[in-house]
Amino acid sequence: MHVTTVGLDADDTLWHNETIFRLTQERFRALMADVAGPEALDARLAAIERRNLTLYGYGVKGFTLSLIETAMELTGGEPPGRIVADILAAGREMLSHPVEPLPGVRQALAELSGTHRLVLITKGDLLHQEQKLAASGLGDLFAAVEIVSEKDAATYERVFARHGTGAAEAAMCGNAMRSDILPALQAGAFAAHIPYPLTWAHEMAETPASHPRFAELAAIAELPGWVRSLG
Amino acid sequence: MHVTTVGLDADDTLWHNETIFRLTQERFRALMADVAGPEALDARLAAIERRNLTLYGYGVKGFTLSLIETAMELTGGEPPGRIVADILAAGREMLSHPVEPLPGVRQALAELSGTHRLVLITKGDLLHQEQKLAASGLGDLFAAVEIVSEKDAATYERVFARHGTGAAEAAMCGNAMRSDILPALQAGAFAAHIPYPLTWAHEMAETPASHPRFAELAAIAELPGWVRSLG
Repeated sequence: MHVTTVGLDADDTLWHNETIFRLTQERFRALMADVAGPEALDARLAAIERRNLTLYGYGVKGFTLSLIETAMELTGGEPPGRIVADILAAGREMLSHPVEPLPGVRQALAELSGTHRLVLITKGDLLHQEQKLAASGLGDLFAAVEIVSEKDAATYERVFARHGTGAAEAAMCGNAMRSDILPALQAGAFAAHIPYPLTWAHEMAETPASHPRFAELAAIAELPGWVRSLG
Repeated sequence: MHVTTVGLDADDTLWHNETIFRLTQERFRALMADVAGPEALDARLAAIERRNLTLYGYGVKGFTLSLIETAMELTGGEPPGRIVADILAAGREMLSHPVEPLPGVRQALAELSGTHRLVLITKGDLLHQEQKLAASGLGDLFAAVEIVSEKDAATYERVFARHGTGAAEAAMCGNAMRSDILPALQAGAFAAHIPYPLTWAHEMAETPASHPRFAELAAIAELPGWVRSLG
């Protein structure tokens, strides 16, 4: 078996993302402190995000709309204007937030890109993901970029067929068990999980510890060595 | 010269889109009638959309956020809750609007797909465009789908290289002179303009009437014949 292609998740694998959502959510809690306690607020927001997921998908713009909707519901439909204004401002700030690669990312990718085709595979707003990749300065290390609306086994089959030599000769790396690891294994690829301290509740899943093609890595610095070990 | 690949724009080429934005804008005018006249409202919305374009890109979610921002600005930062609620509802309705191919689309594409590789090339929200293609029932006629954040000459070069035999052997078809026609010609492709009755102000541009690879078609029914005439 010869691994030719390495897929990499972007958000929370190459750069911070969930942290920025959490910071915005904390700002939202402060903003709504007179209206609802943090737990009631978080629960309502989570329910509204879930309800909107099939329409809005993943990304900042849908999150911003869900924040406004949450403020509407919890204020009897009459949120103070400053709350709406602050939510809109928070959304814009998330979209223009500076992007800095996580520690060890640049070095690991530079090392791997000499021997393997690197493919960025990420969900989210198309424009925003392209802007983040450009801002990260990592763009030149990737042979291809695929921004997808869903990460399931069919997605990995298609992407590794298009940009590599098929899923069987590919390895996927990411922080989200449910969208980066399990469907990639199902597609027949290798998969390495690199946990991020914060993981979105929707992404929690069991670890496939006994799967022969699975590895748990402590940091992305371990990725090049693991990929080499696959042959 | 042998044309192997035909690129097709989606919104307002294969199905209505601008009409749905215009209807929402009319609904917004009615909603804001006590606050601002239609001309002042449209001008303010257009300015806010332009200001947000680099952050929000194209699509319904960014449009919804711009509507809310317009309502904020024109009400001194305190829009009545029912206005915000109605804007959120309008956005959700746009995202779940039924998609029906424009007259002649299915037949033209079915005819062309027997002899040419069809590639859908469209801007907008990734998830929403995929959902519209699925809802249209046209998905099986396309060999590939590219949802892009910008349509410039480099985009067409890249897409026709990836999914065809290069731009020189491709023809692009769409309603927007500025994003479908001019950059495709610049990339070296053929291009056919099929006007849609409503065209977004951002997309207006001169007709390249004398360009040897340009054609103006009255309806998509003329597309298969024109493509065949290219050899």
